[in-house]
Amino acid sequence: MPANNIFYAQSGGPTAVINATACGVIETARQHPEEIGTVFAGKNGILGALREELIDTRFESDADIAALKHTPASAFGSCRFKLDDSGNNHEQYERLIEVFEAHNISTFLYNGGNDSHDTANKIHVLSLEMGYPIKCLGLPKTIDNDLPITDVCPGFGSVAKYVAISTREAGLDVASMAASSTKIFILEVMGRHAGWIAAASGLAQEKTGDPPHIILFPEITFTPQSFLKRVEESVKTHDHCVIVVSEGVRESSGKFLTNAELTDAFGHTQLGGVAPIIAHLIKSNLGYKYHWAVSDYLQRSARHIASQVDVDHAYAIGKAAVEQALLGNSGIMLTIERLSSQPYEWTIGTAPLSKVANVERKMPRHFITEEGYHITDACREYMQPFIQGEAYPPYHNGLPQYVRLKNRCVEKRLEPINV
Amino acid sequence: MPANNIFYAQSGGPTAVINATACGVIETARQHPEEIGTVFAGKNGILGALREELIDTRFESDADIAALKHTPASAFGSCRFKLDDSGNNHEQYERLIEVFEAHNISTFLYNGGNDSHDTANKIHVLSLEMGYPIKCLGLPKTIDNDLPITDVCPGFGSVAKYVAISTREAGLDVASMAASSTKIFILEVMGRHAGWIAAASGLAQEKTGDPPHIILFPEITFTPQSFLKRVEESVKTHDHCVIVVSEGVRESSGKFLTNAELTDAFGHTQLGGVAPIIAHLIKSNLGYKYHWAVSDYLQRSARHIASQVDVDHAYAIGKAAVEQALLGNSGIMLTIERLSSQPYEWTIGTAPLSKVANVERKMPRHFITEEGYHITDACREYMQPFIQGEAYPPYHNGLPQYVRLKNRCVEKRLEPINV
Repeated sequence: MPANNIFYAQSGGPTAVINATACGVIETARQHPEEIGTVFAGKNGILGALREELIDTRFESDADIAALKHTPASAFGSCRFKLDDSGNNHEQYERLIEVFEAHNISTFLYNGGNDSHDTANKIHVLSLEMGYPIKCLGLPKTIDNDLPITDVCPGFGSVAKYVAISTREAGLDVASMAASSTKIFILEVMGRHAGWIAAASGLAQEKTGDPPHIILFPEITFTPQSFLKRVEESVKTHDHCVIVVSEGVRESSGKFLTNAELTDAFGHTQLGGVAPIIAHLIKSNLGYKYHWAVSDYLQRSARHIASQVDVDHAYAIGKAAVEQALLGNSGIMLTIERLSSQPYEWTIGTAPLSKVANVERKMPRHFITEEGYHITDACREYMQPFIQGEAYPPYHNGLPQYVRLKNRCVEKRLEPINV
Repeated sequence: MPANNIFYAQSGGPTAVINATACGVIETARQHPEEIGTVFAGKNGILGALREELIDTRFESDADIAALKHTPASAFGSCRFKLDDSGNNHEQYERLIEVFEAHNISTFLYNGGNDSHDTANKIHVLSLEMGYPIKCLGLPKTIDNDLPITDVCPGFGSVAKYVAISTREAGLDVASMAASSTKIFILEVMGRHAGWIAAASGLAQEKTGDPPHIILFPEITFTPQSFLKRVEESVKTHDHCVIVVSEGVRESSGKFLTNAELTDAFGHTQLGGVAPIIAHLIKSNLGYKYHWAVSDYLQRSARHIASQVDVDHAYAIGKAAVEQALLGNSGIMLTIERLSSQPYEWTIGTAPLSKVANVERKMPRHFITEEGYHITDACREYMQPFIQGEAYPPYHNGLPQYVRLKNRCVEKRLEPINV
């Protein structure tokens, strides 16, 4: 086996374009056969490294690797598994480095959100201490768009596009029926701590009066009276009201609305989902007929309407990570750097992992209108570029053709451990 | 004003392609200026006729009418308003005929589902009795696909495509995470009385083991024990389980699951939506982590991924309706007739309105597998043609460009009535 193997792992919730990053990694590595050996991918993310379940991507054809660019979800499997926090000498980190050493892995590419960059940083530091230096690079990925320094996180542009399109489409639907039937439509979107995804729905509004009429952000405390007043105004002016609500919206006590006492005030206990709570609040106070939708996994897996800019970002991050490793760099996260907004121009940059790890970027207050129910022009200017272009996947028989890899693991060389 | 005007109205819930039918009507009428005067459209459907709110489509440019072909929802407004049932002489029907007479309307095109064809038929009969014969034609439209005689209802193909794609995409997502996190994904789709939409999700399955693993139809009584057994089997075999549930699924008492006592058995009261009920049933019995989505209006307004075959059907229905009216025909609904499945070939046919009115077509039992949790090959062969082709709308600035018409009403000529 040649030296200089790469270990690549996907972490946390999938996106529509995380596999485009994997494609960028593997295609770029394949262009450097003299310098890079094998790209191993973690089966189910970092768990694959701990369990020594290393997918040998050499078994995947060039065509299948190319198809990753238009395939949503995590092609090698992902996981929610946070490595132990208790100091640098913990056995989990040592195990990782042992596995890397056993398979001549000199580069660790970790494709994920906050936790992942923290992990990558710890391995970077520890591997130096252990005398087996590994080049550790973070590849940003999260629909939540909450990583610092990078202008945007790959994955966000596509969920933003999906949410803006869905808001526009469902908005036309409810407007059609408002004269005699439903006047309220509520779309619940992801974003437990930051309102970026909810904010993206605001792009659907081209002129005053277009949906969405109200956006509820986790950054703004939910106050029922002010909200209901605004709903009523919207119905009076436009005969309907389209509301996009972030799952992370909170009441004044700081509790998520999904768990709030507000729920009990209706005499109902909630099975999950803030949209039905908002719907019921409106119904019981204003009497309007409502519909609600919860897009859940649909929003982050909607590769059929992925943003071309997002796909380009995701691929470029994968490519640049391999190039940085070839240059011998470590301890950095790749970033998207904006050069200009109009026309939109960007390049790839880097940031120290230590400055990224565990920093959560929320919506800046000036991206939200003063009264707290919509986005500002500054926010539009920031977000607009990320939803540009339609990166349609190929279709067969009316359905998108997404690749399923062979995912064959290489033979184990170490004693198994319990993870 | 020239004689031989047409009145066209949209009825009930919108679809992604009902405006393509409107486009077919208006474009075809414009090609016959010698024989056809003005196409009036009902503002908010049949309410527009009762209130004498007739949109004069002559104010709309050819380009805007052409754009209807790629615009979802109901461009002239729709309504849920059932005309009075009590005999043919009711004043509502007389009012309609008065309005038609006052505006030289000799053709009534009603674009809707069961109720609409019943209404069109009554006006057909009554107008003959009243000595002002109106050509009444029904134009099928419903995502529910529950009209008889026609092979398919325009609107169904696009919702079917959306649901099949969403199932495939979210299925990949949950499979990615199943090793350490969510194992269950539930997608709730429309279909209160017939399982056509839920069935369409089955098209996402190309080989055994692909999602969806379980489909819950309104036609099959929901039995928790058998269902849970199947969920457990799926998780054992595939490590995850994707379930598509029709909103109309019922328990053995015949009650909708959304209202069922089952709900109380969990100690929860339901705010609407069957997906969270199913999720909770699984959680409390099997303990698996779940996610659920309710696509609601998103599914029927998703013009961004409409089926080309569906758009073609919808347009052809509008065109044929005008042509049938020019031939002097009345009392009929236009239908889609299948000539061949492979390759798919079709033509436009007609059926007497009297045979369509108030007949609801459910899924035939042989379209559902014996144990009741999936679709059969016969169902696939029937449905596959309807999701073929991607009729993408034009985009500007990352978002689909849907037309908003001027919707200017013609001057009233009658005394107003209270509707």
